[in-house]
Amino acid sequence: MIIARREILIEWGDCDPAGIVFNPRYFEWFDACAAGLFAQAGLTKLELTDCFGIVGIPLVETRAKFLLSSRWGERVSIESQIITFRRSSFDLRHRLLRGSQEAVIGEETRVWAARHPDDSSRLKSQPVPDQVKALFGLGG
Amino acid sequence: MIIARREILIEWGDCDPAGIVFNPRYFEWFDACAAGLFAQAGLTKLELTDCFGIVGIPLVETRAKFLLSSRWGERVSIESQIITFRRSSFDLRHRLLRGSQEAVIGEETRVWAARHPDDSSRLKSQPVPDQVKALFGLGG
Amino acid sequence: MIIARREILIEWGDCDPAGIVFNPRYFEWFDACAAGLFAQAGLTKLELTDCFGIVGIPLVETRAKFLLSSRWGERVSIESQIITFRRSSFDLRHRLLRGSQEAVIGEETRVWAARHPDDSSRLKSQPVPDQVKALFGLGG
Amino acid sequence: MIIARREILIEWGDCDPAGIVFNPRYFEWFDACAAGLFAQAGLTKLELTDCFGIVGIPLVETRAKFLLSSRWGERVSIESQIITFRRSSFDLRHRLLRGSQEAVIGEETRVWAARHPDDSSRLKSQPVPDQVKALFGLGG
Repeated sequence: MIIARREILIEWGDCDPAGIVFNPRYFEWFDACAAGLFAQAGLTKLELTDCFGIVGIPLVETRAKFLLSSRWGERVSIESQIITFRRSSFDLRHRLLRGSQEAVIGEETRVWAARHPDDSSRLKSQPVPDQVKALFGLGG
Repeated sequence: MIIARREILIEWGDCDPAGIVFNPRYFEWFDACAAGLFAQAGLTKLELTDCFGIVGIPLVETRAKFLLSSRWGERVSIESQIITFRRSSFDLRHRLLRGSQEAVIGEETRVWAARHPDDSSRLKSQPVPDQVKALFGLGG
Repeated sequence: MIIARREILIEWGDCDPAGIVFNPRYFEWFDACAAGLFAQAGLTKLELTDCFGIVGIPLVETRAKFLLSSRWGERVSIESQIITFRRSSFDLRHRLLRGSQEAVIGEETRVWAARHPDDSSRLKSQPVPDQVKALFGLGG
Repeated sequence: MIIARREILIEWGDCDPAGIVFNPRYFEWFDACAAGLFAQAGLTKLELTDCFGIVGIPLVETRAKFLLSSRWGERVSIESQIITFRRSSFDLRHRLLRGSQEAVIGEETRVWAARHPDDSSRLKSQPVPDQVKALFGLGG
């Protein structure tokens, strides 16, 4: 099981007039953390496209709970991991922590997506290779 | 029942290297649409703070489904409405439409929040006034 | 001479903990206004790429003066125009107005850029077609 | 002379449909680097406000030259320093480097700003304390 961890210093420009992180920033960070998790498993976006022939791992659904707000100048960390692989999609969880307290929990569903064979402007989900599942210690 | 509608021209800078809207942008738009929905009911953020003594309507939970991607140069619209009021929180739904097709569905839970009486750095939820529920045609 | 004008409602999420627009937002708006100015002249980004064979009009230099800050809930406007065409580059000016007062002045230099014939990962500036200069009423 | 250095991994979401960093991101990074430079000198934003009684060091002018574009997945660094102190304002320079090559040069003018004594909604520049200039090795 791979857990990727990222430290974030909350900048002035991440925050809104209430002095707390403006919620879309969390989704920027979660997106970067998802890429970082794959990179930690040896799968950078370039490898995803070049070796596995997919376009990427686009988000199809996301949920977040905002438990504690965070202010500029604070340091937080995000722990990201894959929870489940299904045939052609998978779920990730991102836990944003202030110290040891959960501040935001983000859950994403992403798909393993290639260009559609009949229409290159569309995507088509593909089975996640067993090799990829194994890299995360989550293979069948 | 009030439904607020906003037209959006998708700009180059809203999009990622795949040429489609980068997902955090949707949450920026939904946040602006929530403010716009309240403003349409006569409740700008200034009125919320000055007349009702609250700090704002912070997000405590959000969910989004990404059904169709949208590209720069496209025009989309977002229809926003309140679905339910509870005692001190409420649910909104944002439907982002490409023409008549649902492209993204966002659902938010927000709270009616004032400064905590014992600690001004914290928030405390407050009962949503009946007057506010009535403005949206959703009073008990 | 074409002057493109855009109205902007400043949103909560455009602003920083001081309650005023966070400066990178101005550059997002200026970029969108540059695209809007070309679109108003009949030159959308798709037409630039399809009809004129260029990749775009990338920014090579920008300058901005921040004269007055603007707060969330305010409405401002941006007036954008091309000041000068040179052989393969041109200067734009964006005036962000609060009412009739200049609040931010942005000046950009952009190039008319195609793929480099020897290396498609690089760009190469191209002479701006007279037809394009004429569309803006600025031909030689 | 203090030079602050920051490493940046360019994320997918920092980039536009051309696959390169969207220019407003540079200004977000420069703003964070300016704060980081002051923090490295022992002057966090909290210390600026609490010890020196100012509101902040708002930007009044900025200029940037974009020499080389940068793509997602690349690592760049930013070196930031104060170039000149004047009576109540100062100039900073940010050099964004790809390896040893200058990719973007940003130059900012910021002011040492307190609340206006007659109107708390406005700012008024103040003389930069000699103590602050000395911290940067740039005192008279």
